[in-house]
Amino acid sequence: MENYTKTTVQRGARTELHDALHLTGAEISLNELPAGAGVPFIHAHRQNEEIYGVLEGEGYAVLDGERVPLKAGDWVRVAPATKRQFFAAAESGIRYLCIQVKAGSLGGYTAEDAIL
Amino acid sequence: MENYTKTTVQRGARTELHDALHLTGAEISLNELPAGAGVPFIHAHRQNEEIYGVLEGEGYAVLDGERVPLKAGDWVRVAPATKRQFFAAAESGIRYLCIQVKAGSLGGYTAEDAIL
Repeated sequence: MENYTKTTVQRGARTELHDALHLTGAEISLNELPAGAGVPFIHAHRQNEEIYGVLEGEGYAVLDGERVPLKAGDWVRVAPATKRQFFAAAESGIRYLCIQVKAGSLGGYTAEDAIL
Repeated sequence: MENYTKTTVQRGARTELHDALHLTGAEISLNELPAGAGVPFIHAHRQNEEIYGVLEGEGYAVLDGERVPLKAGDWVRVAPATKRQFFAAAESGIRYLCIQVKAGSLGGYTAEDAIL
């Protein structure tokens, strides 16, 4: 496999990186919702944990029916079975990334996995 | 396990999310280097793929000896064995995230793994 792959993400509604970067351990998407908008469906996952990071703006998630406020700098891990839906605030758009990985898949990491 | 965990990342040199969010499929770090600075060592990995995303500023990576320019919006997958080192530009700091996952660990994702 290539020693590295690179892409440049333009601003826009949604960009998925798995195929662009030939990822093998994650799918990563960059998402934008304008003020007042929301993802039009609730979803959960079978095996995958999702980590959401808010890059800009404000909004909220509904996680198993609980409203969780979100602003730039917030990071949230959502367990596979949790029912989730994301919204921008009424007066602010939101830009966030979603990292999808298989729950329980990480073995050693950082110092345990590094070769210096 | 909890249906969700949440943390707020303050600006700063480096923040690691694995323990803060009880992640099981990834380690995620947020990193900042001031203008002219670099990570002071080269490293590779045994099993883990790393995905770097540049949030702000400019710099470059050296990947197996090749200088790869980086600016906000750039995303790079680095294979486990690739020798890597990261630098800010001479005149600009850089803020980037690093997502560490086990190479080959992702099974189905998005529509294949979702429950609607």
